[in-house]
Formats: sequence, C-alpha cells, structure tokens
Amino acid sequence: MEKRILLTNDDGVNSDGLWAAYEALLPFGDVLVCAPATQQSAVGRSISIFEPIRASQVMHNGKIAYAVGGTPTDSVIIGLHALNWNPDIVISGINIGENLSFESIMTSGTVGAALEAANQGFHGIAFSLQVQDQGDKFGHSISSPGMFLPVHKVIGEIMTQILKHGFPEGVDVINVNIPSHVRGGYRITRLAEKLFVTGVEERLDPRGRPYYWINGPLIRDAKEGTDVHAIAQGEISVTPITLDCTAYSGTESLRRSLSGILSL
Amino acid sequence: MEKRILLTNDDGVNSDGLWAAYEALLPFGDVLVCAPATQQSAVGRSISIFEPIRASQVMHNGKIAYAVGGTPTDSVIIGLHALNWNPDIVISGINIGENLSFESIMTSGTVGAALEAANQGFHGIAFSLQVQDQGDKFGHSISSPGMFLPVHKVIGEIMTQILKHGFPEGVDVINVNIPSHVRGGYRITRLAEKLFVTGVEERLDPRGRPYYWINGPLIRDAKEGTDVHAIAQGEISVTPITLDCTAYSGTESLRRSLSGILSL
Repeated sequence: MEKRILLTNDDGVNSDGLWAAYEALLPFGDVLVCAPATQQSAVGRSISIFEPIRASQVMHNGKIAYAVGGTPTDSVIIGLHALNWNPDIVISGINIGENLSFESIMTSGTVGAALEAANQGFHGIAFSLQVQDQGDKFGHSISSPGMFLPVHKVIGEIMTQILKHGFPEGVDVINVNIPSHVRGGYRITRLAEKLFVTGVEERLDPRGRPYYWINGPLIRDAKEGTDVHAIAQGEISVTPITLDCTAYSGTESLRRSLSGILSL
Repeated sequence: MEKRILLTNDDGVNSDGLWAAYEALLPFGDVLVCAPATQQSAVGRSISIFEPIRASQVMHNGKIAYAVGGTPTDSVIIGLHALNWNPDIVISGINIGENLSFESIMTSGTVGAALEAANQGFHGIAFSLQVQDQGDKFGHSISSPGMFLPVHKVIGEIMTQILKHGFPEGVDVINVNIPSHVRGGYRITRLAEKLFVTGVEERLDPRGRPYYWINGPLIRDAKEGTDVHAIAQGEISVTPITLDCTAYSGTESLRRSLSGILSL
C-alpha cells in the first residue's frame, strides 16, 4: 500500500497549503516535494523552454524539499526527469484559492502541474481551497490555525478511496475544490464556463500615464451541476478533467464551414 | 462584409508572422493589432493578476499597433476591455512554430490567446507555421522571403470560408497548423496526445553546479487522424477545439472510485 507520491503546487515551496497537503499525504507513502521556488499563480501550464532551470534542495521545518526556479509544470518535469522520481500519483496543491471553471483549468498553475503529469502518463489530482480573505497588508495569505483541517480530511478521504477503488478510467486529472466553509458533502461536477466577469480597471501612475489591472466580479448565476455552483453551496467539488480538448461534437459543423476547401 | 478583427500572437508585436497575418487579414476588414511587447512563447493561457499591465501605441512599417507588457491572454483582455475593440473574430498568430497535440493547446501562448477570446464569447482562430530551422546564431527565427506565402493563402481561404458559411457550432477555437512544406490539402484532425517525448538535459555551469534544459525528441509514430500525423504528411491541419475539459465519459468511473464518500 506504500505509494510514491510527487507533491507540487503553484504557490511555491514555502506555502502553508503545500505542507498541509504533505501532512495529509504522509500516511499513504513516500512523498517527494518538488515545487516552484517562488509564487507562480495564474501561469497555467507554462513551460520554460527558453531558459535553463535550476533546482535546489531546501529544508522546511526539518523536511527535505526541492525548490525549482520555474513554473509548476517545470517542477513536475524536474521531479520526474531530473530527480528521477517515478510516482504512483502526482498531487498538486493545496492551492490557497479556488480553481474553478473553464478559466481555471487553463490558467491555474496548480491544475497545470497536474495536467502536465497526466500528459506524461501519471495520475494527477489538484486540490484547491476557497479563501475569502485577501491576505495581510502585503497580500500574503494568512493561514488561520484551523484553516487546513477540512483540507486534511478531504485529501485523506479521496486518497483512501482512489487507492482502494483505483484511479477512474477516462479521467486524466481530478480537480478537487474545497469551500472555505464546508456545508455539504462531495459533489461530482462539470466545469462552469467562467468564474469571473473579465474586465480591466484603468489607473493613472504618479506621472499621469495609464496602466491596467485585470479585475472583475465573480459570476453569481452559475448553473446547477457545475463546480462554481457546488462551491457556492458549500459542497466539495470533484471534477473529472480530460486533456483532450478536441471538439468532437463540432467536427461536422467545421466540415460544413470549410466545405469549399476540403478535398474529402 | 467588412469585419472587425482583433489580431494578437505570442511571438510579440514585431514578429514577421504577426504582420504576415495582418496582410492576409486586411481584405476582410478592420484589423486591430494588440500583441505582447516581447516574446511570450510557451506561456499558455497565463494571465497577469498580480502585476499591472501597460499598453503602448507603437508604429510598425507605418501601421499602428498596440504593444502590451504582458502575456497573449493579457493582450486579448487589453484589446477587448481597455481599447474597447468589439471584434467579430479574434485571430492569433501566425506563430513561427507548430502548435500541435494536447501539450500545445495548454502551453502555447498563440492558442492560449484564442482560448481566452473564446471564453469571453468571441470566435477565435489560431494559426501556426511549422518551421525547420532553429533561427540565427542569437536564436531569432529567420524569415525567408517566400516563407509566409502559404500562410497568406491559408488565412485567406479559411477566412473566406468562415465568413461565407459561419463559424462552426460546438467549436470554441479553430487551431490551424501549416506544414513548412505543404504537400497536401486541408485535413480536419483531432489532437494527438503528445508532440515531444518529455525529458531534461543536465549541464554544469562554469562553477560546476547543475542546471537543466527541458528537451526531448519529436514523437515519430503519431496516429492517423491526429494533427501531428497530418503535419508529418505535409497536410494543413485544422482542429476544432473546445474549452470544456470536463471528462464526461469518465464521470461514472469517478463516481465508482469515490463511492465510499459520495452521498448521492
């Protein structure tokens, strides 16, 4: 039953969320921590192909970890191919902040790392925790003492089930989101279309020149059955994710749209 | 028939590929160029949420363009929400280098920009050109005089068809790849699983410390029907892409895997 686990994230190797996941995973086997040296949120599945990558062994509260000078995807690649860890499963997180909807699958570094692992043939699970606060005055998230208790429980329960029944077929990554206040059980969901209404806020710098912040309110009317809706209900959202973004159901319509130039 | 077009890319606003696309798109309407100020390859759908974004109006061979200090996704957001351009279609590219397989959809900035546009409700097409050379001694791609002729033809033909027959239903983004030497016609494809065998190359710096380059050979045995296979045959690959990465076919298997903790 002793499993080899690769643990990464996108908040960086010093994130309390990562180490909360580490504690939760220890009962299941041997955990190698290989994560970005610095905060890498919203980098999606970015990969460093133009720069070389450094990896350093660091200590965190007496535990060995590897800090990678790159993205979450880089960290997975370094763990698998430079440290030659051959895991039974790759866990990413726990991210401090929810990762929901079409948007998050392609922009979240947490999910990106799990997708990279899956694309290399490993089972991947991403864990994210909804947070309500905006951090301290420097923007660092404040970990309150009981904040990670539900995380510990959820990771333990999901790992137990997956190790008992097997990783689901036809699923590349399992995307788990835990509400900040759990008021329900586990819910298998589909991805919502969006989490935010995209917009920008224009500001003027001290010299009167404009700059922009990407910002926008949360979507309020998510459809039932979606991950965004489940989290709003206080349920733990579990979404099966595929790497295959081919729009099979649109193939015939595409064929008609291009009918004048297709030879077949 | 005069259309409003937003043109972006990931190679940056000075890329010859972008301006080749610009020339090809001019007959179809009014083209706003809003693209990253610098090279942004392999950033996927990364989005700048921790940094403010600058945009500058620049001139390129007498034409106005907007240079965005951010990612391809940022450029789309700035074009739509800061420049308030309301396009009929968003074009990304032409990328110098092919964007194929599961890997490219989530790591390519070119495709990422088109996906961002689609997630905001706009039609998106990504164009990429396979290249064989590795650039000059500084790694800059060399644009040979006739290099973009097939690009011009392909963009023209696809735009003509889409404007005549409509953008296909059930498709969020059309991902078009053009081989460096076109030897066939258009082929509607599905995504291959991978383009590269992922690996790393360890080197030692002048002080004897290791660093890593992500590197690996191209996959040689792509399955028929995939984008990778079509390009290898010299065909122009056209792949319908969906934003919805929910693994619907894996939902029941996931339900069984989690049967011990699901209440429903």
